[in-house]
Amino acid sequence: MPSNTAIVYLKHPTEFPVPGEHLGVRTNKDFNPVLKDGEVLTRNLVISLDPYMRGRMRDASIQSYAPAFQIGRPLDARGVAEVIESKNSKYPVGSIIHAFVGWEEYTVLPDLPTTMIIPQARELQSSLPLSSYVGVLGMPGLTAYSSLKDIGQPKAGETIFISAASGAVGQLAGQLAKAWGLTVIGSVGSDDKVDYLLKEVGFHHAFNYKKRSVHEALKELAPKGIDIYFENVGGETLEAALDNMNTFGRVIACGMISQYNTREPYGIKNLMEVVVKRLTIRGFIVGDFHDKYFADFFRDVKDLLLKKEIVYRVDEAKGIEAAPEAFVGMLRGKNFGKQVVKIADI
Amino acid sequence: MPSNTAIVYLKHPTEFPVPGEHLGVRTNKDFNPVLKDGEVLTRNLVISLDPYMRGRMRDASIQSYAPAFQIGRPLDARGVAEVIESKNSKYPVGSIIHAFVGWEEYTVLPDLPTTMIIPQARELQSSLPLSSYVGVLGMPGLTAYSSLKDIGQPKAGETIFISAASGAVGQLAGQLAKAWGLTVIGSVGSDDKVDYLLKEVGFHHAFNYKKRSVHEALKELAPKGIDIYFENVGGETLEAALDNMNTFGRVIACGMISQYNTREPYGIKNLMEVVVKRLTIRGFIVGDFHDKYFADFFRDVKDLLLKKEIVYRVDEAKGIEAAPEAFVGMLRGKNFGKQVVKIADI
Repeated sequence: MPSNTAIVYLKHPTEFPVPGEHLGVRTNKDFNPVLKDGEVLTRNLVISLDPYMRGRMRDASIQSYAPAFQIGRPLDARGVAEVIESKNSKYPVGSIIHAFVGWEEYTVLPDLPTTMIIPQARELQSSLPLSSYVGVLGMPGLTAYSSLKDIGQPKAGETIFISAASGAVGQLAGQLAKAWGLTVIGSVGSDDKVDYLLKEVGFHHAFNYKKRSVHEALKELAPKGIDIYFENVGGETLEAALDNMNTFGRVIACGMISQYNTREPYGIKNLMEVVVKRLTIRGFIVGDFHDKYFADFFRDVKDLLLKKEIVYRVDEAKGIEAAPEAFVGMLRGKNFGKQVVKIADI
Repeated sequence: MPSNTAIVYLKHPTEFPVPGEHLGVRTNKDFNPVLKDGEVLTRNLVISLDPYMRGRMRDASIQSYAPAFQIGRPLDARGVAEVIESKNSKYPVGSIIHAFVGWEEYTVLPDLPTTMIIPQARELQSSLPLSSYVGVLGMPGLTAYSSLKDIGQPKAGETIFISAASGAVGQLAGQLAKAWGLTVIGSVGSDDKVDYLLKEVGFHHAFNYKKRSVHEALKELAPKGIDIYFENVGGETLEAALDNMNTFGRVIACGMISQYNTREPYGIKNLMEVVVKRLTIRGFIVGDFHDKYFADFFRDVKDLLLKKEIVYRVDEAKGIEAAPEAFVGMLRGKNFGKQVVKIADI
């Protein structure tokens, strides 16, 4: 293993990051790590690219819920990896683990408590591809499941609107809501994604926000109003959702991707709806809900996946060098499904 | 009783209502009502003017939480009144009651379940003036108490910021929060009101938003950040509060008076703070909390008032003809304390 290619964080972006300027490829041609006690060396198989990472591209002096990436160092991500050298008896060579690894081919991991072995990862590969553990069965899946239950408080017969609805979180949120008896409406940014939601996923309604106003679409598709808005987008989409919400509606403030790469954030003019309609808008991060929901989530969703009652589309970039373009593409909505980078086969 | 002067709703305003144009004075010089069974005739003593009434000045086809005022009819308000004729055994002549009455000298009331006799109203007048029952012990008081408990979830040691802090709701909210161990910061629109909050009410900090930026004031006065924002104002004040809130902060969305009289609402640009800091913003109306909190509220606050541990400033306009100017003045922040109109002595 003489060579290890990594994506390195070069510079803080103010708008969209640019591959080469903010994210660079660096190959270490003499990679021969010597492990200390407790450490393992992983061969990284797949890593997850997620919108929240844009918020980590900031000066470390600015506090936020996820730590800033460090200039000059490889970025890190949730990933699935194979242990290929080990000085840790909990992680024998050959283990398939779920851990924070670098955006790189190989990573030396300390003895992290969050690192964990994935049971039956190899045996279940045909039903549960490795990318599942960073997607539908991983952080985005738990995000959808836990926030929908805890903040959404869904009741059968209600209507939910989900933005970025074919993304990592949205597509599962919609299928769970449908299973729980809700009418599900999704907004996406292409006709292909509309087709996917209607024909493969089974949303009741879906529309392309680039072709029609969200406000008009919601008026037509949710004539009785929206009870839950699963917010991934922000800006005008949030404004339209607030206008169309029902009394005691809930907004699950998961993310606002339209606002991440702009120096001129959109001003929401109708927050008075919160008072008039007695709405709740609540932000969260997935870690807030881990202890309360993880076991139920993993059992329920794994079961649905094994029964093929849930579909979950993954957008797989190939090779670590493809990661910067894939990341920026995701911020621009070019991904179709949960974005991952496949670095190596098992 | 040949004459009854009333304030009549003439026309829907688009910005600030104008006395004479939207609200008119009308005197019925031949007022001799004949009561039906169950009805009472009241002599109205004091009525409450409240910011939410601006929302009732709309076309009746627009749904909202409080019914629209009807063109050509007297406006109505919570009031304290004396029963002077009665065809209802529950309300004998001489009773002092708390009820929705007209903005007028005399009102015929049907047999309303919300109408109620105020016990010991005459005996307790020196400690509890009649205006108390539409202020600190009435709807604004319950608003402050219930929403602070239910949405604010206050914990000793936390910091609360209250806008419109010398108003009907704000001044009580601040005193309750202080009694419950919080650090209390208020914003108001004049130096006199700052003095009142600091010297008479006992807020820890207060500032005049017309003289300094809310953002800068909060940075200085809440160096550890805000845990609860009691929102009465909206617009730039809300934006500054969000910027200065702590993780898991709560916004009690009581009202947004800066947005009631404009056709160009202010756009809030930093709602991403809701995601980043996991904030909750929640709207309500006081009726949502009545059953859960009224008994505790009335007992606790009455007790504090009788012990003179709470001060509560009332701005009393004199005579029903003064109501339109007093109402518009309140919307512009000219009132100092809870706005009422004193129509007659007991």
